[in-house]
Amino acid sequence: MNNFQYYAPTKVVFGKDTEKELGALIKEQGCRKVLVHYGGNSAQKSGLLDRVCRSLEQENMEYVTLGGVVPNPRLSKVREGIALCKENQVDFVLAVGGGSVIDSAKAIGYGVANEGDVWDFYAKVRVPQACLPIGVVLTIAAAGSEMSDSSVITNEAGWLKRGCNNNLCRVKFAVMNPELTYTLPAYQTESGCTDVLMHTMERYFNQADNMEMTDGISEALMRTVIKNAKILLTDPENYEARAEVMWAGSLSHNGLTGCGTDGGDWACHQMEHELGGMFDVAHGAGLAAVWASWARYVCQERMDRFEKFAVNVLGVEPAETAEKTAARGIEAMEAFYRSIQMPTSLTELGIDPTEEQMQEMARKCSWDGGRTVGVVKKLDQGDVLEIYKAAR
Amino acid sequence: MNNFQYYAPTKVVFGKDTEKELGALIKEQGCRKVLVHYGGNSAQKSGLLDRVCRSLEQENMEYVTLGGVVPNPRLSKVREGIALCKENQVDFVLAVGGGSVIDSAKAIGYGVANEGDVWDFYAKVRVPQACLPIGVVLTIAAAGSEMSDSSVITNEAGWLKRGCNNNLCRVKFAVMNPELTYTLPAYQTESGCTDVLMHTMERYFNQADNMEMTDGISEALMRTVIKNAKILLTDPENYEARAEVMWAGSLSHNGLTGCGTDGGDWACHQMEHELGGMFDVAHGAGLAAVWASWARYVCQERMDRFEKFAVNVLGVEPAETAEKTAARGIEAMEAFYRSIQMPTSLTELGIDPTEEQMQEMARKCSWDGGRTVGVVKKLDQGDVLEIYKAAR
Repeated sequence: MNNFQYYAPTKVVFGKDTEKELGALIKEQGCRKVLVHYGGNSAQKSGLLDRVCRSLEQENMEYVTLGGVVPNPRLSKVREGIALCKENQVDFVLAVGGGSVIDSAKAIGYGVANEGDVWDFYAKVRVPQACLPIGVVLTIAAAGSEMSDSSVITNEAGWLKRGCNNNLCRVKFAVMNPELTYTLPAYQTESGCTDVLMHTMERYFNQADNMEMTDGISEALMRTVIKNAKILLTDPENYEARAEVMWAGSLSHNGLTGCGTDGGDWACHQMEHELGGMFDVAHGAGLAAVWASWARYVCQERMDRFEKFAVNVLGVEPAETAEKTAARGIEAMEAFYRSIQMPTSLTELGIDPTEEQMQEMARKCSWDGGRTVGVVKKLDQGDVLEIYKAAR
Repeated sequence: MNNFQYYAPTKVVFGKDTEKELGALIKEQGCRKVLVHYGGNSAQKSGLLDRVCRSLEQENMEYVTLGGVVPNPRLSKVREGIALCKENQVDFVLAVGGGSVIDSAKAIGYGVANEGDVWDFYAKVRVPQACLPIGVVLTIAAAGSEMSDSSVITNEAGWLKRGCNNNLCRVKFAVMNPELTYTLPAYQTESGCTDVLMHTMERYFNQADNMEMTDGISEALMRTVIKNAKILLTDPENYEARAEVMWAGSLSHNGLTGCGTDGGDWACHQMEHELGGMFDVAHGAGLAAVWASWARYVCQERMDRFEKFAVNVLGVEPAETAEKTAARGIEAMEAFYRSIQMPTSLTELGIDPTEEQMQEMARKCSWDGGRTVGVVKKLDQGDVLEIYKAAR
């Protein structure tokens, strides 16, 4: 097993009515002025945004608001947020939303606390030295950004989708009330469940001698999400199922399921980033659409892991050979995705990229041939293109 | 399921040679003077203490040292530490050792950062408002104090063993090198494994509607510790087994395995505290000695949990009735304890309390009849006495 660092300092306040504790949580932070950052209309329509603002007013906390964050959050909105914060001497960012809003809040936090262009941190030409403190009121179980060190932003100039990972952006507190996710459309719910699953699957498939402790946690997490994603398809106001998926979402991406690994594969995420940059698809759905093609392309490199995944996560009966068990596991995963109405191909995802578009995505994904992606098999530009084609 | 808070901000630096990172970790804390706190001779003999002090010197960090912490750490040593820190303007406590040293460091941290008598916080007549920052170099997998909010101290006046739980004492960083535990005597290793197990078992047995996510993590953790405790009995320098148990030890007591529960039972811990106060037994061994007697006394109150424990943790084949399956689980747990040379009775623990001594422990445990202990069944003074007798 590998050495590791584990650092997940976010205070999680989980359960019914927990947004009522928001005022006190903000006050604990000792800040003077808050940016309330949010996405589209749902936070307004549901009344959540109003309740959040009332909490701040009750604590005599000054605030400004900035909405309009979209899925695959944009650099232009981040720049708008940075300017607004600087103008108003904001010293705390409260994200009310899901991964896109939180990632945008983190980018704003970097932009305000560091000199120069914030995109540098995502283009990986500089490393951030500070970040404004950030709090979260979570409205979708998906990205796990509420406990992760990660932020992903799309630069409209070239539609580059790039991530920045740094402990500085770890959220101070996250208010998680599963009831706030009751009204999500089924497609968003299930896309979110897929995202949660994939954060652990990316870590689970690796080239390390894995810890039993980490594998046990990961397998329990994946089983829990698979079971409850099915329940939510027909029973979206099932509190227990919403809660299981929401808590799994945070644990899936806070580092816990990567302890002792080599960091994991992440090729599917890299390939989906390009899909998201070019076509603006739902992140989880994009991951589902490429996963099985990736799995079949690489599985001979780590047959033991694919076999273990099939048996311990999907309940596949062991076959005569590891190969067969692994293949059945991949089929079972595809069947699961279909059962929750997630795509298992680009066509089912609703996109039909041309040969040239696939070549462009493969080129961008491999940084013009300057890097490989993944660790189960190190995929070069040609491998990535093959997987896009197989996923068609 | 219950609402919960989860807050485990400790930075874990885990693996081989990680104590070499100590200097940098201390420097990050921005402190000026360190108390290096430790136990008996092993930290000196092994050369670990020297290496720790060299790391501090390399960072030009001033320090004072205080050794001599004993199992069931004493209030007199805590008071000595508080005086030493005040004299020397110490602003950071580095615990080099296991749970006893860490708990003593936490108590010193409270004593320095608050006015008045530190015992007040353990007697629960006052709540601490601050704590010095604390770091850890862990030398035994057992108490989980390196990530927990808990500290337990024994007051020699009356031999009262009392705990104080507060987020303020959560450790800033914990250096965990499993190799540092190679030289532990088998009895301490296995007593430590029992302690690790019991921190999750105490949470697992409760009266809540439990989260699947939490149960899955808990069951994986318990299976991992049971398997690796057996390995360590014959192969104490097995790095993987040492690492599994060490990481399980931290996760078992950092709050993770309690999420969504009612907090858990903890009656065995309360009963063992009295054993430890009166007889100075190894904590884990004391827990093993009373567990089965407790389990048989209370299991009809939560047969479903005892059944699930038997099947999912101990691999018991389900019998015709839940009662039988549960009973077989308790027997399997006793067999496991015996297999790692842990006691399953007070006699096997090596003590033979008189009737009067048991009455005194039951009286102290129930605060002169002023409280019950446990949640699976709320045990009064008479119940506690019955369990001590059954455990004889």
